[in-house]
Amino acid sequence: MMKEEKERLDELFDRLYPLTRSITGPGLRESLDILKEVIPLDVEHVSSGTEIFDWTIPEEWRVYDAYLVGPNGKKYADIDETNLHVINYSKPVDKRLSLEELKHHIYTDPESPDAIPYVTSYYDRKWGFCLSKNTFDSLPEGEYHAYIDSKFIDGKLSYGHCKLEGKSDDEVLISSYICHPSLANNELSGPLVLCALYNRIKRWSNRHFTYRFVLAPETIGSLAYLHNYSDELTEHLVSGAVLTCLGGYKKRVNYQKSRMGDSLLDRVVLNEKKFGDIELEVRQFTPINGSDERQFCSPGFNLPVGQFAKTVYGEYDGYHNSKDDKEFMTIEALIDSADHIETILKRLKYALCYKNTKPYGEPFLSKYNLYSSVNAPDTRNDSTDYIQNDKRVFLNKALRVLNYCDGEREMVDIAEKYGYSIKDLDSIIDTLVEKKLLKKIGI
Amino acid sequence: MMKEEKERLDELFDRLYPLTRSITGPGLRESLDILKEVIPLDVEHVSSGTEIFDWTIPEEWRVYDAYLVGPNGKKYADIDETNLHVINYSKPVDKRLSLEELKHHIYTDPESPDAIPYVTSYYDRKWGFCLSKNTFDSLPEGEYHAYIDSKFIDGKLSYGHCKLEGKSDDEVLISSYICHPSLANNELSGPLVLCALYNRIKRWSNRHFTYRFVLAPETIGSLAYLHNYSDELTEHLVSGAVLTCLGGYKKRVNYQKSRMGDSLLDRVVLNEKKFGDIELEVRQFTPINGSDERQFCSPGFNLPVGQFAKTVYGEYDGYHNSKDDKEFMTIEALIDSADHIETILKRLKYALCYKNTKPYGEPFLSKYNLYSSVNAPDTRNDSTDYIQNDKRVFLNKALRVLNYCDGEREMVDIAEKYGYSIKDLDSIIDTLVEKKLLKKIGI
Amino acid sequence: MMKEEKERLDELFDRLYPLTRSITGPGLRESLDILKEVIPLDVEHVSSGTEIFDWTIPEEWRVYDAYLVGPNGKKYADIDETNLHVINYSKPVDKRLSLEELKHHIYTDPESPDAIPYVTSYYDRKWGFCLSKNTFDSLPEGEYHAYIDSKFIDGKLSYGHCKLEGKSDDEVLISSYICHPSLANNELSGPLVLCALYNRIKRWSNRHFTYRFVLAPETIGSLAYLHNYSDELTEHLVSGAVLTCLGGYKKRVNYQKSRMGDSLLDRVVLNEKKFGDIELEVRQFTPINGSDERQFCSPGFNLPVGQFAKTVYGEYDGYHNSKDDKEFMTIEALIDSADHIETILKRLKYALCYKNTKPYGEPFLSKYNLYSSVNAPDTRNDSTDYIQNDKRVFLNKALRVLNYCDGEREMVDIAEKYGYSIKDLDSIIDTLVEKKLLKKIGI
Repeated sequence: MMKEEKERLDELFDRLYPLTRSITGPGLRESLDILKEVIPLDVEHVSSGTEIFDWTIPEEWRVYDAYLVGPNGKKYADIDETNLHVINYSKPVDKRLSLEELKHHIYTDPESPDAIPYVTSYYDRKWGFCLSKNTFDSLPEGEYHAYIDSKFIDGKLSYGHCKLEGKSDDEVLISSYICHPSLANNELSGPLVLCALYNRIKRWSNRHFTYRFVLAPETIGSLAYLHNYSDELTEHLVSGAVLTCLGGYKKRVNYQKSRMGDSLLDRVVLNEKKFGDIELEVRQFTPINGSDERQFCSPGFNLPVGQFAKTVYGEYDGYHNSKDDKEFMTIEALIDSADHIETILKRLKYALCYKNTKPYGEPFLSKYNLYSSVNAPDTRNDSTDYIQNDKRVFLNKALRVLNYCDGEREMVDIAEKYGYSIKDLDSIIDTLVEKKLLKKIGI
Repeated sequence: MMKEEKERLDELFDRLYPLTRSITGPGLRESLDILKEVIPLDVEHVSSGTEIFDWTIPEEWRVYDAYLVGPNGKKYADIDETNLHVINYSKPVDKRLSLEELKHHIYTDPESPDAIPYVTSYYDRKWGFCLSKNTFDSLPEGEYHAYIDSKFIDGKLSYGHCKLEGKSDDEVLISSYICHPSLANNELSGPLVLCALYNRIKRWSNRHFTYRFVLAPETIGSLAYLHNYSDELTEHLVSGAVLTCLGGYKKRVNYQKSRMGDSLLDRVVLNEKKFGDIELEVRQFTPINGSDERQFCSPGFNLPVGQFAKTVYGEYDGYHNSKDDKEFMTIEALIDSADHIETILKRLKYALCYKNTKPYGEPFLSKYNLYSSVNAPDTRNDSTDYIQNDKRVFLNKALRVLNYCDGEREMVDIAEKYGYSIKDLDSIIDTLVEKKLLKKIGI
Repeated sequence: MMKEEKERLDELFDRLYPLTRSITGPGLRESLDILKEVIPLDVEHVSSGTEIFDWTIPEEWRVYDAYLVGPNGKKYADIDETNLHVINYSKPVDKRLSLEELKHHIYTDPESPDAIPYVTSYYDRKWGFCLSKNTFDSLPEGEYHAYIDSKFIDGKLSYGHCKLEGKSDDEVLISSYICHPSLANNELSGPLVLCALYNRIKRWSNRHFTYRFVLAPETIGSLAYLHNYSDELTEHLVSGAVLTCLGGYKKRVNYQKSRMGDSLLDRVVLNEKKFGDIELEVRQFTPINGSDERQFCSPGFNLPVGQFAKTVYGEYDGYHNSKDDKEFMTIEALIDSADHIETILKRLKYALCYKNTKPYGEPFLSKYNLYSSVNAPDTRNDSTDYIQNDKRVFLNKALRVLNYCDGEREMVDIAEKYGYSIKDLDSIIDTLVEKKLLKKIGI
């Protein structure tokens, strides 16, 4: 199964990587089509010129060819080699010009001199090429031929989404972005882990929450999605997370809390960090950088959406440049991320509000085979079904859960207060629910 | 007076100790009758078979004789020697059997090998004897005669209660349990300190609260009491405490907070611990072990009931065995406990909400003889009735009390915020109330 | 301008210092008349005998002459030398008496043996003289002539107030006291800094708040003011401060918080102390000592009034005695205090609640020339009007301000949470308000 998942992700990566994605256009649509083979995305479109809050959907960018030829006939940039060579949303050009003139149209990343940077100019019409700093420094004097065959048309922005229904119509959002061409960690890691999570959660028995999966171009795409679905999200969303930068060499998962800072998922992750066994780093929400959580968490929406990442901006030198490839990202790292995130998502239903159904005095536990009927030093708590090795530990947890589940506190807060991880409590909760001593509130 | 109290408690102890108490039956009733000689208990009964929340009042247990005779004719267990020798609620038996067979019916306390453990089996019909581990290990092979003459009848569970009325019908509950035979610290210390407190509080002049005293078998008895009186308790109870394990060698008082954690008594005890002179240890509420506060603090009732103890489970090796006797407990320790608890209870009325009756500006203190009318370096605050040695200290406290008593904050919270003990403020409160500058809210 | 202010304050000081001020009477009225030349005070009067909350306005005290002549003909006390020599509110006397008898009427300050103390007896009719401890110790045996020509008449207590209107009728109160004769730091520093602040705030363009200035005799005068204006203050007051002891050698400003502890000014001062550049010491409110904030912050009013001071009681040995003169206080120290307080008051409007006008998603910042339209490593955030040297710093602050200004949190709380001083944010707020991306709430 894991083998199969790994192969599927590897194949998906190789097909998606070379496509010339942008925030609109054919590369984006082709990418969504490929992903539809794996998860049943419903793809929707928003036309150029549509006003989306303070923004306007731009014209669609189409690029057919792009290269830069030097005085010596050498191709210094060529879209066929890598689509990073041309500025995303570059306007067309067919011009011969001196090195001096050309330099105003060349972008490099001085901090990563052997890498080709990824540069965009969505909202201001420019043309330009991206070169490694080393190549740039080696450009000879003479006449260059700059050629970009691109055009802007009234087109559309596309995004895809789908749901896995649960017992409750309370929703958990899993969202990622799809708009960067030829970047691995800071693009494909998100959609690929999203695919893995979809296929895992689909197999969960007794799924409590409904899971909503969204793939859209970053920023403008999530704004377009919010434009169409913010009412649904506001009504149903219990928690959610944006997936970004989930590959790389880091072992632990990095979670950024939602703007509100105390969503169910925020608290479950914090509980896991303090008392569980998944290694986690937890950050506060910031509007300064990051991904689509900046839109979900803008003050008008203030949705309970966090962010899962692994190796983020500042932790690797391939950010937004050609070093961000599969060798750096690795499929194994993605599976590791999917494992951790799936485990955390499984905790969510045990973090909800439960109510003791026998709240007046202690329940008569012997009746439920949860307590020994003989109270003696050497047989205490014997002869019960559910209390095996760690008898007293089970009983103590059950007594705490029963006492504190007064229908006012969520389990994650009870766990937090008394130093339990959700994992410490999940089987007790299942047992007490099965014996009808505990009842989930609101279902 | 103290001499008299000590003698009375000593005599009570000696009469109560040997009775074969259980959660029902004649030993319990006889114990309540003896206690009625000292405090005016109103004794009530609940019939076997009555459903009490998730529980059912069991049949009444009567035991007439019980012994275990060895192959050598030696009596290894004999109810006439100590009623701990027979399992509480043991079913009748009259049987000759081998050592091998017998062993399934013998209970010991391996951690206290020279002590006879106290064992109960209220809700599962068994028979058995309790022996010290040392005796058990010395039992010879051969045929034994096990004889228990007991029976179960449709009877009743009994409890007793009484009140000392105060100016307010807000109540303070003092509760303890009565069901363990021949145990001193973990049985009689509670009822005896309760008797001492009753007789002390009865003598208080100007009693503010109404005090309710309850003695019932542990767990099922307090549940029966709650079944009949939970509405009254819910309506009137301001604070309360279960008394348990109040003897032993420990000097300090150990207070366990109520489940809500901020009852008036909880806060008064915490204030006393931080700023007062009684040595105190304070624990959080736990549903895992303890006494009847587990029932009072079950989530359906959530009453403001804490627990006073001195030497608790884990602090002495006589827990639930024959070492828990008067030599360990000592009557002196009980009087010490009564002293501490009485002092703390006296603080309660000073911890309430008071209101400054002249809240607009500072009161004109000179008018009340609380402030010197001459403001000079060497006569400041002279010639006042109430300001004697510690003039400025008194005035400062009075100014703080007047300023912060805005009718919204309880005095204990004001004391907490400004680092006073209740004892630091009681005489200032009395003075300001007498001068009509301060008024208790709600009376 | 600063030169002019210094000269004006210096001249005011010299005219006000020698007047025989008290809580009523001609010295008080003459002082208010002089201050009216500088700020347009509206002076009001309350008649002797008027009941003010728990107090009564006393008779007016008038003193015409006062001296103490020794057996050697030497004048040991003379009101013409300093009005501190006679007890404020001394009753008349014309008596020859022995040193022994006289001593009951002499007041000294043993802790400052070369200083003449300032003594009052407003509410108890006494007569007496104040001498330095050294003079007192040197008094020869023999007959003394004690002469005080004073009288008490049905008169009035006076106070003055005026306003500087702002865009909002939300008010900031600046209050000080005027009743001590011949004291500099603990009297004139307050009214003089109040005058300086009036004239500075008058020149502010775009004044947001309305500023109310009050000068009244301490305690009884502020109570009289509250008696007439507490409804207005309760309705409009957002924050305020009493000015006291603003001279002396200390460099930092000492702010005492209001009783509520979280007024706008309380929070602005705390923010400035933590993140700003003015050196500040911050104390909790206390009803034990201090100035008129004790009346403003009495529980019936509980107004948001703090206290600004520099060198307070306990920090200098001239408290309430003849050492408290202009040499100790210095006019330069007053200007320093006015500078600091003016700067803090300027922060207030930036501490209010603002709302992002484009709360759904991030605003499209490029449109407002706040964000570079090209996203590249070496040109990020170029070519914008507002982002010059510290481009990214400006943008980050703007993004935070926009995200957190949801109309529910005041800016000072946002600043506090994210570690900014108000000064860090004021120009960003101005820019965003100008671009209509931010809007002050409630105006």
